[in-house]
Amino acid sequence: MKSGVAQVTLSEIQAPVLGELDSVFDEMVCVLQADVPLINDVSAHLLRARGKMFRPTLLLLSAQAVGEITPKEITLGAVVELIHLATLLHDDSVDHSVLRRGQPTINAEFSHEVAVIMGDYLYTRAVEQLVKLQTQEALEITSRVTNELTIGEMRELISYDGLEFSEADYQSLILAKTASLMAGACELGALAGGQRWREPFRRYGTNLGAAFQVADDLLDYTATEDVTGKPVGQDLREHKVTLPLIAAIPRMSTGERAQVESLMANPTPEKPEIDAVIKIVEACDGIGAARARASEMASQAEAELDDVPPGPARDALLASISYCVERRK
Amino acid sequence: MKSGVAQVTLSEIQAPVLGELDSVFDEMVCVLQADVPLINDVSAHLLRARGKMFRPTLLLLSAQAVGEITPKEITLGAVVELIHLATLLHDDSVDHSVLRRGQPTINAEFSHEVAVIMGDYLYTRAVEQLVKLQTQEALEITSRVTNELTIGEMRELISYDGLEFSEADYQSLILAKTASLMAGACELGALAGGQRWREPFRRYGTNLGAAFQVADDLLDYTATEDVTGKPVGQDLREHKVTLPLIAAIPRMSTGERAQVESLMANPTPEKPEIDAVIKIVEACDGIGAARARASEMASQAEAELDDVPPGPARDALLASISYCVERRK
Repeated sequence: MKSGVAQVTLSEIQAPVLGELDSVFDEMVCVLQADVPLINDVSAHLLRARGKMFRPTLLLLSAQAVGEITPKEITLGAVVELIHLATLLHDDSVDHSVLRRGQPTINAEFSHEVAVIMGDYLYTRAVEQLVKLQTQEALEITSRVTNELTIGEMRELISYDGLEFSEADYQSLILAKTASLMAGACELGALAGGQRWREPFRRYGTNLGAAFQVADDLLDYTATEDVTGKPVGQDLREHKVTLPLIAAIPRMSTGERAQVESLMANPTPEKPEIDAVIKIVEACDGIGAARARASEMASQAEAELDDVPPGPARDALLASISYCVERRK
Repeated sequence: MKSGVAQVTLSEIQAPVLGELDSVFDEMVCVLQADVPLINDVSAHLLRARGKMFRPTLLLLSAQAVGEITPKEITLGAVVELIHLATLLHDDSVDHSVLRRGQPTINAEFSHEVAVIMGDYLYTRAVEQLVKLQTQEALEITSRVTNELTIGEMRELISYDGLEFSEADYQSLILAKTASLMAGACELGALAGGQRWREPFRRYGTNLGAAFQVADDLLDYTATEDVTGKPVGQDLREHKVTLPLIAAIPRMSTGERAQVESLMANPTPEKPEIDAVIKIVEACDGIGAARARASEMASQAEAELDDVPPGPARDALLASISYCVERRK
């Protein structure tokens, strides 16, 4: 990945599929309609902030790069975004989050009950649409990926507190929690070009998604609150163990390690304690090591696109890699 | 429906498919295995109490009545029971219930987070197994039904407090919340006998499931705590509006109606107030009307089996109707 160049924006990436993304959004609106007013109220709230639609973007670009975007790909785009929204609803409910995309979360605006059930509603509506396509491959990819997502969520629950949470554990977590759905989106899109493209696009999406998550976890150590909207060190405050810390631990002195353990043992660590641990992680090159790992995965993602025919879709998929790795928020 | 006869037991109903039910349970155990210890711990807790397995029983009996039970029906049985368990997990989590089948609920024993995510895990594993069967009809039935379940849950959230909750609203609620999965189980089983059996078995299951729910809601007005394990009038205490109350309202005097409204306006109604409303519902024949409705649906369920070849499976399906309507807990 080049550095020092102007940051890639989402709208550059989405340019080749802009009209199709509108169709995906329209289909989502249509699919969610129900004859229960409460469901329509929640859907309206959910769809008010359209979100980045990054997963449908990947799906559509993958399809365009090796084939053609047909109504099937529009539906698949809606399916992956609905699944993504369902996981956000359950995540926010489980975490008692109050804000998402600058809007109150469903659990905050309606209730915890509504958030859980509405997540189930979104997911089951997505599966219904998928079944209508009568495409066994798409069903296999999607059902595998959605189960992986739940496994990722469970792995995340055990990623807290434990300094024995290893780099391998972290890798399993981010593959399941973040990379799986992005990989699934790319693989679903690649079906438009035939079986031979499935594997390279899946590997592209896996590496892209994993790099995306490492970059996200890095922000907690490097970004400032005015950029990300959340205080730096939030993961440490919640005792969440991510790659920068995992990579730094083996290089820490006994005293430094004790400081980290003390933070993990403190149910309500304050800013000075958190800042001290961030400094230790920096000094032990945890941040450099995590950046190197993200960079490595970015190169792997790039390599998977070597045989893809050149064109705007391929360019946008390459730009997506920079977008994920260089993200500031 | 005959009355005054000895009550039908679950083991009588299950006798024709006892071995196959064991296979369903074994498959569930197998399907839930994961390489995340926390998932296996929760699964072990969930499967410790095997439960009534009523939905797989209906599925297997339906298959046996018009065709043959093959490994596909065993998998479908596991799928419907896993979906049922997933809804129980989310129900208990949403309701903050602490006991289920005499065991602590997952939200009580583990945590709310684990209950929500584990529900998602069960459901997505069920879909994965279903997809492997490569049967479009089974996918269509199951995806339709699971979405109906979530709509039923949303309808239930709005069934509280409102005396304007009508009999039509109640009917929509119980069809979605309870009847849909039982109807789906019967329809999935009937696939073993070919397309012609799908509709009658679906209607049988719909009526059976609706009668089951009406009987369940009646218990709240008629059963004693030592039988059901929950205090009589629990629904009224929670301001939950069910058929006996809905049927009684039009027959109430202004004063009686005011008493019901006062209970609904009281956030913590006590036993004397609840008992008084139960007496009003009895006096206005709400209980009789609900019983008549259950009986009517039971007769409709029975009629759907008229053309089904005689044999132990058909007998057990007929007995299931009495089991649902005459249930004491």
